[in-house]
Amino acid sequence: MQTTTPRQLDAHLIERFAAIVGPRHALTAPSDIAPHLEEPRGLFSGRATLVLKPGSTQEVSRILTLASETGTPIVPQGGNTGLVGGQMPDGTGREVVLSLSRLNRIREIDLSSNTAVVEAGVVLQVLQEAASERDRLFPLALASQGSCQIGGNLSSNAGGIGALAYGTARDLCLGLEVVLPTGEVLDDLRSLKKDNTGYDLKDLFIGAEGTLGVITAAVVKLFPKPKGRELAWAGVGSPAAALALFESALAKAGAALTAFELMERTPLDFVLRHVPDTRPPLAGPHPWHVMLEISSGRSAEDARALMEEVLTAGFEAGRLEDAVIAQNEAQALALRHLREAMSEAQKPEGGSIKHDISVPVAAIPAFIEKAAEAVQSVLPGSRVVCFGHMGDGNLHYNVSQPVGMDRAEYLAHYRAMNDAVHAVVRAFGGSFSAEHGIGRMKREELIATQPAIATELMRRIKKAFDPAGIMNPGKVI
Amino acid sequence: MQTTTPRQLDAHLIERFAAIVGPRHALTAPSDIAPHLEEPRGLFSGRATLVLKPGSTQEVSRILTLASETGTPIVPQGGNTGLVGGQMPDGTGREVVLSLSRLNRIREIDLSSNTAVVEAGVVLQVLQEAASERDRLFPLALASQGSCQIGGNLSSNAGGIGALAYGTARDLCLGLEVVLPTGEVLDDLRSLKKDNTGYDLKDLFIGAEGTLGVITAAVVKLFPKPKGRELAWAGVGSPAAALALFESALAKAGAALTAFELMERTPLDFVLRHVPDTRPPLAGPHPWHVMLEISSGRSAEDARALMEEVLTAGFEAGRLEDAVIAQNEAQALALRHLREAMSEAQKPEGGSIKHDISVPVAAIPAFIEKAAEAVQSVLPGSRVVCFGHMGDGNLHYNVSQPVGMDRAEYLAHYRAMNDAVHAVVRAFGGSFSAEHGIGRMKREELIATQPAIATELMRRIKKAFDPAGIMNPGKVI
Repeated sequence: MQTTTPRQLDAHLIERFAAIVGPRHALTAPSDIAPHLEEPRGLFSGRATLVLKPGSTQEVSRILTLASETGTPIVPQGGNTGLVGGQMPDGTGREVVLSLSRLNRIREIDLSSNTAVVEAGVVLQVLQEAASERDRLFPLALASQGSCQIGGNLSSNAGGIGALAYGTARDLCLGLEVVLPTGEVLDDLRSLKKDNTGYDLKDLFIGAEGTLGVITAAVVKLFPKPKGRELAWAGVGSPAAALALFESALAKAGAALTAFELMERTPLDFVLRHVPDTRPPLAGPHPWHVMLEISSGRSAEDARALMEEVLTAGFEAGRLEDAVIAQNEAQALALRHLREAMSEAQKPEGGSIKHDISVPVAAIPAFIEKAAEAVQSVLPGSRVVCFGHMGDGNLHYNVSQPVGMDRAEYLAHYRAMNDAVHAVVRAFGGSFSAEHGIGRMKREELIATQPAIATELMRRIKKAFDPAGIMNPGKVI
Repeated sequence: MQTTTPRQLDAHLIERFAAIVGPRHALTAPSDIAPHLEEPRGLFSGRATLVLKPGSTQEVSRILTLASETGTPIVPQGGNTGLVGGQMPDGTGREVVLSLSRLNRIREIDLSSNTAVVEAGVVLQVLQEAASERDRLFPLALASQGSCQIGGNLSSNAGGIGALAYGTARDLCLGLEVVLPTGEVLDDLRSLKKDNTGYDLKDLFIGAEGTLGVITAAVVKLFPKPKGRELAWAGVGSPAAALALFESALAKAGAALTAFELMERTPLDFVLRHVPDTRPPLAGPHPWHVMLEISSGRSAEDARALMEEVLTAGFEAGRLEDAVIAQNEAQALALRHLREAMSEAQKPEGGSIKHDISVPVAAIPAFIEKAAEAVQSVLPGSRVVCFGHMGDGNLHYNVSQPVGMDRAEYLAHYRAMNDAVHAVVRAFGGSFSAEHGIGRMKREELIATQPAIATELMRRIKKAFDPAGIMNPGKVI
């Protein structure tokens, strides 16, 4: 019996792939390929001898047809900003990177239905701006929005700050165009709010990280642009106080509460220390910080009044130590920047061990307490760098190395630290991959920790969609 | 080669199934079984010699294990209110009905995380009331809420009036407990707002109408109970005027716009003619009517002010002919009743041919125009009875028989009428099953009209999850 060992990428096969997209869009020179083989954080890298940049859905289809016929593994790649290695080829050099960057048209914006039809390679910020110009809001917002692409956002079911009120990428998507591993095109670009026709294929492709097919276009939801937006920064004494503030803010503002971020003092200190042109948002020190946003569809005055009501109630109940409301767009940007720079600001502090976790919202204070104990039990002196989307129960629970320790020596604890923190996550019924996905990074842990029957079902789905196993092998499952 | 013909349900097999649930909960007397073999509308019926009412997830698991081993087809049934025959056994008598009614515990309500863990057999209204008693809202609301069950709501991804602001059943569910056809239990009862760990199994079971497994419990979202709710009824001149009113209301109220129903005059006339204790909501006649609801998390006064602002703007822009705001709970109930009685009120008018369709919201006026032409081309004199959830693009586009025609003669046009209306739906990129599902009723049409590759993928999923084909055969796909 012959196993289907994928062929090496010989010159003839490269030629056949290149002929589909044209020589200009088939990258083979190492210097052209290099940017596709390492992600910004430097945790994952790979090898490849061919990067294809198709210019149409039809070209993607022809690429996958040829890949199927020849058993050539394909690694779809968007803006290459993923944090779990889902967009990286392996080290063999036989995987072909499929860049969606040239599929970058906004095909349509429908102001009456509040929808947009966008191709996979549209940069998130470009879509945000196109919506804004038409007095609409596309609420997905990520630190990487200047380079990440919609196709990648959907494939990884991206979250971010706005997910609290508007949901994750999955919630923002109404329809998809997907090229299947066999090259067939599933055209389901429908702008329907309700559609109960059979199994939910759309939500299976979303979050599958390119292992079931290639998303080439999507219909996404737009929202009326809020007439007023207020951003505030507050100092609080504890996660419990922050939780009480969150509950009170949600009760008062409901869906108008469009962000609620919790941050420990440490990541703020890192930002103030390492990121140029930043300054403390509040006069005094506080052990915990909150950034919250209120958006009103009614008026600017309404947003301001609601924010003041929320903060006043917080002071009166003793939940707030101090707070400031941004007085103009520049101040709001500066506050947002403090939050968004937190990932980056960990680098100069040495090695960082990352956790992208979620627990039930109400469990956050208890989780933070137990996780801190777990961290110290693995390596005393490690510095917890905790920040994230409190309203979603989603924390970036990172751990920086003890001061003065050797970076490599610290990172040797990566697995032990992950195990310890994730054990606490599991004890709270949480997830060890809240919004970044599984990719290459967490695949083994997923298989080791999720119920065997879930792994079995996922494998059957993978096999049903991609019998030849050419779609982004070694990722997710 | 031997095909796996399911065994007949012999006495010995009945005994083995009955032993799992105990004799009291294994119904075999025809009079006990009868209520499970016909749905309220009378369109679908079936035969069975055994109805099992398990009292625990473990019993469901043992039933499915035995069913798998013996090739016995299982038909899960909740409140038996489905409109497409998804809960009905076939006519052979060899299918076993699995009633989830006894799994009716609300296992937990978590006020801080705003979640509830409920078993499949909990009646929707029971959950609504339990939430309300704890100052929370469970927003799913259906005409059948007094008897439909959460398990069925999830299996059919129920919609209803509240879907506009809160989403369908799928959007309201965070985690599931599912018994697979093999008897294995997938326990994913997590209360997480964000969880990107592999393929989205949850959303595959939701809307699968019991063909991939049996949902036995779920974690659902609760919301803070609105502090103010205002219901209004308005007369408008056309669907286009209603659309303009909707857009303006959405822009002003955003997520506070919690219902926007569009109704033709005909179904209102039917209600006033046939339903006791109903009276016209407005003084004059209007060709189209709108029922809209505003909910405020802030205060009763705020809801009233916002409603008045929306209606005033509607008058000033010439979109409204007349409007009334319910002045108390009794008036609100009376207005709601007019809307909810519309399905029922068609019966005395003779045969009715139903369509549960959706189109992009902005396409509703054009759809209504084109569909009316299609209806008349099939059978002149047919009376369009159009009402539904405008904000979701979802219309119950029903067609009552011409006055005086023989009912059976009229219903002979069922297929032709469906074909004509659904052709218009397709021309607008719409769905012929917006919220009721596929079940037995629309299976052939789904297969005939959706892209072949979608059918193929759904069949592969079905086979991957239910290789023996015992789960609700002949439904969906």
